[in-house]
Amino acid sequence: MRVTVWGEFRHERDEPEVAKLYPDGMHATIAAGIAEHLGDAEIRTVTLDDPEHGLTEETLAATDVLTWWGHRAHEEVADEVVARVQRHVLSGMGLVVLHSGHLSKIFRALMGTTCRLRWRNGDDRELIWTVDPSHPVARGVPHPIEIEAEEMYGEFFDVPPPDELVFLSSFSGGEVFRSGCAYRRGFGRVFYFRPGDQDYPTYHHKDVRRVIANAVQWACGDDRERELPEIRRYEGPHG
Amino acid sequence: MRVTVWGEFRHERDEPEVAKLYPDGMHATIAAGIAEHLGDAEIRTVTLDDPEHGLTEETLAATDVLTWWGHRAHEEVADEVVARVQRHVLSGMGLVVLHSGHLSKIFRALMGTTCRLRWRNGDDRELIWTVDPSHPVARGVPHPIEIEAEEMYGEFFDVPPPDELVFLSSFSGGEVFRSGCAYRRGFGRVFYFRPGDQDYPTYHHKDVRRVIANAVQWACGDDRERELPEIRRYEGPHG
Amino acid sequence: MRVTVWGEFRHERDEPEVAKLYPDGMHATIAAGIAEHLGDAEIRTVTLDDPEHGLTEETLAATDVLTWWGHRAHEEVADEVVARVQRHVLSGMGLVVLHSGHLSKIFRALMGTTCRLRWRNGDDRELIWTVDPSHPVARGVPHPIEIEAEEMYGEFFDVPPPDELVFLSSFSGGEVFRSGCAYRRGFGRVFYFRPGDQDYPTYHHKDVRRVIANAVQWACGDDRERELPEIRRYEGPHG
Amino acid sequence: MRVTVWGEFRHERDEPEVAKLYPDGMHATIAAGIAEHLGDAEIRTVTLDDPEHGLTEETLAATDVLTWWGHRAHEEVADEVVARVQRHVLSGMGLVVLHSGHLSKIFRALMGTTCRLRWRNGDDRELIWTVDPSHPVARGVPHPIEIEAEEMYGEFFDVPPPDELVFLSSFSGGEVFRSGCAYRRGFGRVFYFRPGDQDYPTYHHKDVRRVIANAVQWACGDDRERELPEIRRYEGPHG
Repeated sequence: MRVTVWGEFRHERDEPEVAKLYPDGMHATIAAGIAEHLGDAEIRTVTLDDPEHGLTEETLAATDVLTWWGHRAHEEVADEVVARVQRHVLSGMGLVVLHSGHLSKIFRALMGTTCRLRWRNGDDRELIWTVDPSHPVARGVPHPIEIEAEEMYGEFFDVPPPDELVFLSSFSGGEVFRSGCAYRRGFGRVFYFRPGDQDYPTYHHKDVRRVIANAVQWACGDDRERELPEIRRYEGPHG
Repeated sequence: MRVTVWGEFRHERDEPEVAKLYPDGMHATIAAGIAEHLGDAEIRTVTLDDPEHGLTEETLAATDVLTWWGHRAHEEVADEVVARVQRHVLSGMGLVVLHSGHLSKIFRALMGTTCRLRWRNGDDRELIWTVDPSHPVARGVPHPIEIEAEEMYGEFFDVPPPDELVFLSSFSGGEVFRSGCAYRRGFGRVFYFRPGDQDYPTYHHKDVRRVIANAVQWACGDDRERELPEIRRYEGPHG
Repeated sequence: MRVTVWGEFRHERDEPEVAKLYPDGMHATIAAGIAEHLGDAEIRTVTLDDPEHGLTEETLAATDVLTWWGHRAHEEVADEVVARVQRHVLSGMGLVVLHSGHLSKIFRALMGTTCRLRWRNGDDRELIWTVDPSHPVARGVPHPIEIEAEEMYGEFFDVPPPDELVFLSSFSGGEVFRSGCAYRRGFGRVFYFRPGDQDYPTYHHKDVRRVIANAVQWACGDDRERELPEIRRYEGPHG
Repeated sequence: MRVTVWGEFRHERDEPEVAKLYPDGMHATIAAGIAEHLGDAEIRTVTLDDPEHGLTEETLAATDVLTWWGHRAHEEVADEVVARVQRHVLSGMGLVVLHSGHLSKIFRALMGTTCRLRWRNGDDRELIWTVDPSHPVARGVPHPIEIEAEEMYGEFFDVPPPDELVFLSSFSGGEVFRSGCAYRRGFGRVFYFRPGDQDYPTYHHKDVRRVIANAVQWACGDDRERELPEIRRYEGPHG
């Protein structure tokens, strides 16, 4: 399995508190968490400021699953690159969108909705409950996962009803959130997982790492050739 | 619309605290709440201790939507009556199951699962959040609905993934629950709504009453003749 | 209910055979079919060549449900108008997309997928079967609906798994198609209904007219104010 | 993986035509098809006339996935054994139900509906189309799968809307059917796959064998201990 971890990599360079939590960038920590569980995977990291944001046609063609963390620079991602990533997802590449990636251009393009939500940066305790216990993304995690302090995300989360709803979160303030959402789109698969604000050490949390690795594995397609669903005239069922 | 409100009517007769909250029985309060919103509906109440639990073939044939509250006497409901109610639901009658009705024979028969959950009777504050804002059952209620004190129900709730998930609850203890679940079964519709422990005045709560009335309206079928899906040999598409 | 019927209105002006079937344009026939069933609705028609394609902010603000038929001029629809329509759908306006509208910019934007399919223009007989018999869009139609001759659309249809799958079609050639698909997006609702190639008199077919009217009624929201899901910081559950 | 193939094994003993197609019983052919694709699986076969129908507590406890083919003797299956199988499914055992198994007691108990349908034994050609191309059960099969002659099953098929709809069938007569339906129930998973009437050599068909093996693999749970979802009082999130 070939995994590409995409990171915005801005907070970590400008904000000392974030740099302290993630000295090599959040993408490095996310990649390490995946490597921990998927020993055989070939993992690379790329960031916003790489040429073409590190998402060239060549890189995407060699990626089975892409993970995405972005926050304050969504608008700097070139539309052309977004269209390219979307084409790869619909052609069979997996995509795992993390936390504030909910407002990324690529997630909004794939969902078709605003992807907006309510939020609060107030050190809430987050509890993540499994509601689909036989789902592969939920394997091996406690019920609930507990995160001591995190940013709150609350409903209404404007996304399509998930094809598979795996996790629900509650927060100290009493809010709830559909925090693990699986989607099948084209020949590809998309998983959204909520935790991971830059102000908290969440990507060092062992259960969060396990879920992300599970999601990467779930999103990985079979060995089908990478190609878009086609539109074509057929004489009969066989061509 | 013809609505039949079914009540177990035991706690209210044996426990003075419950009787204080619901002097005429919980079923009477539930019926009044429905009447408040669906002025044109013809509403009757029946209880466990009526002959055939009040659910004769005749009564069911004249019922568009049945609501169900039971708790400690689930096992006293005759299997034959359960089978009759199930047949009517699959033939087009609506069913709204309330709170502890999750363990009723009829709900378990329709779901096919254990319908178990975690619980605590500890005066939790419950907040009910809408996650499907264009759903008819969510019309006219605040976001969130707040119930000052209630019994807690938490996940994992062992039901089939809802066909339409409308509400999520959070509780003071940090638990979450899929508290508004819509199902289409046979020619009928089933809605499960969580709140309503006998120890709390929940069925006097104006938003809870609104949701129950909405659910009754949603579950009401069209004017199709009441009959089971059939199994039949067909020569061709038209018969 | 205020309904706006959008028509591309090109085939009918350029192709005599189509003009014979739809002398006043396909939109006029579609509008008449809706009026037949929804007597109280206020129905207007607009077309591609109207200023702003007839879809000004003012018109959309006064529209509860928009229906969309387009085919060969999808690319002529201005991106700005597409964004406006999408904003209205996510804010609560209903949208009913017909036949070749599957490749319209607005449908693709809302679905996030290619919306491609297989097809054949070969006078197939189409049979439309109901798989969700209690769904309001299926009320009052035979099982199956029979259309003597139509263009074939076959799977794989690259759309998100429908939130509610109402109809399946079969064609003489043996192909199948998910031909009635309901989606909830933002505060709005979207229904896709397959039949209606310009070379056939399909929009004069009484059952097809009934389904479109049903879909319009289903897609119509409540009286909630028209506004996008918001993103906002909250101190607590109540603001 | 430990697979138990359950067969009714009556037609094959009483009807020479069926015996010719399946000299060792349909269960033997089904088991061989699974073995062909899942070389590492430990596969056993049991039949209706074995003590306890071959489904003792011990056997089920040692079964990861059970496949079920029954037809004319559904009523001979003891209710006690059905309850035992249902308990194992909800506790995590996979179940793959084949063809006429749709009317088995175990499938009806898990679905909660009548599971009825329309049918015709008229040598229809069946085409099986994939509508969820990234689903593991659809791996490696052509689009469509073609079966030269089979019994027809048509909609309305009275089952809950599938959690994941993988295949649709069309038949010569123009009927359609949701022929590959995935369900998550309790801690277990259920897959229904349509083809396989006893009068046809369908379980020798290479694509049908591949789908059944895929379904077995998909239905196989993780290494979680086998136990029912519980109902339990909790002081707080952690116990």
